[in-house]
Amino acid sequence: MSKISPISGFPEYLPADRIVEQHFLDVIRETFELHGFCSIETRSVEPIERLSAQGEDTDKEIYAISRLAGGSDSGDQRDSARLGLHFDMTVPFARYVLENAGKLNFPFRRYQIQKAWRGERPQEGRYREFTQADIDVVDVGELSPHFEAEMPLVLADAFDRLPIGEYLILVNNRKIPEGFYTGIGLSDVAGTLRIVDKLDKVGPAAVRTMLTAAGATDVQAGQCLALAEIHTPDTTFVDRVAELGVTNPVLDEGLAALAAVIRAGAVGAPGRLVADLRIARGLDYYTGTVYETQLVGYESWGSFCSGGRYDALASDGRNTYPGVGISIGLSRLIGLLVGTGLVTASRSTPACVLVALVSDDAAGRLRSTVVAKSLRDRGIACEVAPTAAKFGKQIRYAERRGIPYVWFPGDGESTAGDQVKDIRSGDQVEADAAAWTPPAADLRPAVHRS
Amino acid sequence: MSKISPISGFPEYLPADRIVEQHFLDVIRETFELHGFCSIETRSVEPIERLSAQGEDTDKEIYAISRLAGGSDSGDQRDSARLGLHFDMTVPFARYVLENAGKLNFPFRRYQIQKAWRGERPQEGRYREFTQADIDVVDVGELSPHFEAEMPLVLADAFDRLPIGEYLILVNNRKIPEGFYTGIGLSDVAGTLRIVDKLDKVGPAAVRTMLTAAGATDVQAGQCLALAEIHTPDTTFVDRVAELGVTNPVLDEGLAALAAVIRAGAVGAPGRLVADLRIARGLDYYTGTVYETQLVGYESWGSFCSGGRYDALASDGRNTYPGVGISIGLSRLIGLLVGTGLVTASRSTPACVLVALVSDDAAGRLRSTVVAKSLRDRGIACEVAPTAAKFGKQIRYAERRGIPYVWFPGDGESTAGDQVKDIRSGDQVEADAAAWTPPAADLRPAVHRS
Repeated sequence: MSKISPISGFPEYLPADRIVEQHFLDVIRETFELHGFCSIETRSVEPIERLSAQGEDTDKEIYAISRLAGGSDSGDQRDSARLGLHFDMTVPFARYVLENAGKLNFPFRRYQIQKAWRGERPQEGRYREFTQADIDVVDVGELSPHFEAEMPLVLADAFDRLPIGEYLILVNNRKIPEGFYTGIGLSDVAGTLRIVDKLDKVGPAAVRTMLTAAGATDVQAGQCLALAEIHTPDTTFVDRVAELGVTNPVLDEGLAALAAVIRAGAVGAPGRLVADLRIARGLDYYTGTVYETQLVGYESWGSFCSGGRYDALASDGRNTYPGVGISIGLSRLIGLLVGTGLVTASRSTPACVLVALVSDDAAGRLRSTVVAKSLRDRGIACEVAPTAAKFGKQIRYAERRGIPYVWFPGDGESTAGDQVKDIRSGDQVEADAAAWTPPAADLRPAVHRS
Repeated sequence: MSKISPISGFPEYLPADRIVEQHFLDVIRETFELHGFCSIETRSVEPIERLSAQGEDTDKEIYAISRLAGGSDSGDQRDSARLGLHFDMTVPFARYVLENAGKLNFPFRRYQIQKAWRGERPQEGRYREFTQADIDVVDVGELSPHFEAEMPLVLADAFDRLPIGEYLILVNNRKIPEGFYTGIGLSDVAGTLRIVDKLDKVGPAAVRTMLTAAGATDVQAGQCLALAEIHTPDTTFVDRVAELGVTNPVLDEGLAALAAVIRAGAVGAPGRLVADLRIARGLDYYTGTVYETQLVGYESWGSFCSGGRYDALASDGRNTYPGVGISIGLSRLIGLLVGTGLVTASRSTPACVLVALVSDDAAGRLRSTVVAKSLRDRGIACEVAPTAAKFGKQIRYAERRGIPYVWFPGDGESTAGDQVKDIRSGDQVEADAAAWTPPAADLRPAVHRS
């Protein structure tokens, strides 16, 4: 048997850190639901040919699955297609929409919080197994542009409820660089985008070199860099672009669309949205607004949340289903926040109360069980001590887990004479299990920024 | 590209059925937490040699994973171990306990709600990808027997909060058949257990034939069958066994332990627990109490929840970690309840209110967005209508999704003059978005037995 050890890229948490993760999952889900997004889950596997049809570099990241014993079952033809684990929620969601189009109501607002897998080399904040939390709105044929403004507001609403500190949602519109590049006479729009997208990694000098190597003049390369440097928290980016003296109808469309998103952000999530004209997102399927997100002070961690508008991700020949979506890289976010100790949980168990045991016999256990049931019936999580050890030892049991209260049943068979102790302060008071309520802050484990 | 179609054994739900599944997940989790169980999640993969070390028939069920591009990365030795998807939570949990023993508090109460995968042939209620919800308590060296009585009470507490109708938790103790078989002179206890375990499938006559074929006398086979037929909702099973005239110290131990569990059940979950001496559970690692669960009226669906006490599942040479656990086969339960239409959700979206749009311009959208924010701030899920269509059309948008209320912003810029309509009754009243609250039953989608 192999030695027991972690597997690189497949993170696991101890209970207290898992409570942090659960808190993030709960808040994100709650926010998505408050905004009227339906939950769906898709199967973890897709036919490999469907997975590998997306994008350039994804092939090598796919995990194929195969039955260890081999062999196909019972001549079921469909089983003969090779299956792989999905590497995001977008490909499965597009397939789900096509498969169920007749049974869904459009525009369809859905969220999806699931694990995904990529066989790439693990590194800080990048895992082989990870959880993503996605929202998308898709419609049939046409998608109203106001959804592009709505997405980052939903995100901001979620982030504002989480202990992640300051963050910025960077927004661009793919039509801006596309129209701009065309306007200055660069015809290979996709190639230019790919080069400019490397700006953060390699810096402006290297990008300039690559652009000229690809056929741009020095002036054109300079224009591309000047566009990418525009970064404004308001709609002044429109003037900044105008100063570059390029006119093109697609560029104008993009500027108007981005201005609408930024204006909606100024009302719905003041201070959170920034127009950043270098954001491109590598994926070819985006056609309009694109998003990235940064934690202020931790920009080197990269984007932990991104997405955009797409037009033809799902199409069944008769209809296309344009959409817009954002995906929170939850494992990345949690891995960094928990890994650096920035966010912690106040205890390692949901239990708020340990009900002490006065004796190990059936009567003693029943006495404590009745108290526990009474607390649970009112939503107070608790457990009964495992043994009738000395009270000091029972209190240490609670202490080690961060359980804030220990309940001491009184002598009689009734619940009279019960007392409850806050083991942090030492305060001990008489209490009735049918009425006592802990302060709201103690009811559940608190998750806070340290 | 392959035709889009379901993959046998990998179920997916439409939004309304997913709401049923979520409700079950939420209630189960909440109950587990009320009882002081911590959440953990383990990675989806384990080294294949660890997975295949468990039990006889599991080998062929394991899905191996491999990077499509092949090749190992960067000389990382650990990556060279072949990995497979876990087929339950028990094997990963045992490994997690050994890996983290120094950082966990024992007795360790944990729950784990995750997907698992088995490559077996799909059939009704059996999937290749499925969700299990497990609770276990493990301790170091010794595990107090009262935990064996506690497990089914936690389960009953969860089931009593779910719309599943009547159910029975069938309980046995492995020491009863073991001691009994030894007491009547059958030395191959495991072999006998395996044959008697087929009773439900093949009937008593076939079991008798198999037992005698395996070397039992007719009298011994009859005794085995007589034991297996004992099924009592109280502790009278002790007398019924005594009537069979077999004495053995292990048998007596088992009877006393089972009686304690049944007595605790009579107090903590009246009418839910039954001593059923035919329950054996195939898995070799159980050593004490074992559990199965049936929905009354749907016994043919089989057990949707099972588990037991184990002594040596996890051992690191120095310490063993005995435990007791129960696993709810959630996908099985949901697949049957939703598949037969027994349980349904009242709507297909979390949204309780559709905020109508009076005009498509920025002012009209802002007006509705302010209402929506006000509702959300008080926990009322809502969405703004996608377009300022005629109100009749906006109402139909809500109707199709089962959204019970439509909010009509008044004419002015302030929120005065707003009205809200219950589209089921047609009742329409003036309302203030900062104060209006729907009846509690409408706030979230209701999930009920039809």
